[in-house]
Amino acid sequence: MVLQWSTPARVTLDTNRMRIVGIDPGLRITGFGVIEFDQQRLKYIASGVIKTSNDKESNSERLGTIFNSVTEVITTYQPDISSIEQVFVNINPQSTLALGQARGAAIAALVCQKLPVYEFSALQVKKNVVGSGHAKKEQVQEMVRRLLSLKSAPSKDAADALAVAICAAHHHQMNLQIQKSSKLK
Amino acid sequence: MVLQWSTPARVTLDTNRMRIVGIDPGLRITGFGVIEFDQQRLKYIASGVIKTSNDKESNSERLGTIFNSVTEVITTYQPDISSIEQVFVNINPQSTLALGQARGAAIAALVCQKLPVYEFSALQVKKNVVGSGHAKKEQVQEMVRRLLSLKSAPSKDAADALAVAICAAHHHQMNLQIQKSSKLK
Repeated sequence: MVLQWSTPARVTLDTNRMRIVGIDPGLRITGFGVIEFDQQRLKYIASGVIKTSNDKESNSERLGTIFNSVTEVITTYQPDISSIEQVFVNINPQSTLALGQARGAAIAALVCQKLPVYEFSALQVKKNVVGSGHAKKEQVQEMVRRLLSLKSAPSKDAADALAVAICAAHHHQMNLQIQKSSKLK
Repeated sequence: MVLQWSTPARVTLDTNRMRIVGIDPGLRITGFGVIEFDQQRLKYIASGVIKTSNDKESNSERLGTIFNSVTEVITTYQPDISSIEQVFVNINPQSTLALGQARGAAIAALVCQKLPVYEFSALQVKKNVVGSGHAKKEQVQEMVRRLLSLKSAPSKDAADALAVAICAAHHHQMNLQIQKSSKLK
């Protein structure tokens, strides 16, 4: 289930081909993954991490790096939509605040590039990609590797970003099927 | 005391004239205030609020609005530095997360415009502007009105933003005095 859907949509839901960027935000490491959904097949395009773990950098410099790097990913790979994981609310309020800030900078970059933003909870992503909401990180990595026919599993942060992109692709596929079946009636 | 200082500084600390933008971030209302610090005098330039309380807007649309509006304030008033209040860590983790996101989008806008970012806690701002860390909102509004020689008190959110800008101005003034006295030695 999609929780958020925003900005003037570039997307027409009857298209069979779509490029999706997934973002897994964090103040120290932000994962990104780009996939293509073509004729119901998933194709890996790129993935990686944005590191802002340099302790010499201030909080605001890190947020600037996240914004600029997410913008660079979008201008390089030209996705049609974006998908982002909802932040886990931490027991430590300071960590929750830091995660919120990283997420705010990343979403601002997506919206500035006029990308529609899908949001999914970690539970939704795991259920969708692995089949269980309680799947471990390693299981997510392995399923991402299989679904995208990769030789080796991507890093944990990149895998999480690819997983949230796959989740958006499956959601899109489901929407297409609903549209088709309603036309047949 | 300044907690954060970032980005390539446009500012040389021996200048007597400086324009400062203060930001008080929030997901529904973000206050902004612009002041000028000239020959040790404070001058009011502008203030207002960025409203994102339209319930039809999604979370990401609101963050986009905060980013774009803060950018507009900067390009309109051309400040030399920016000052932002540290977010109060709420008891409700979801509120903390929402505030963090708003703050992340606002700081991304400041850093993207290459503005140095000062950060102060609410306690520091109140102590600096009113003289007591436990001052009430109304006292902050009244002191802001007096310090900037305004006919009437600004709204609460705009007053908080002006207060954090005044706090940065006082901090800058203190730095100037320290520099002067060290030159005299």
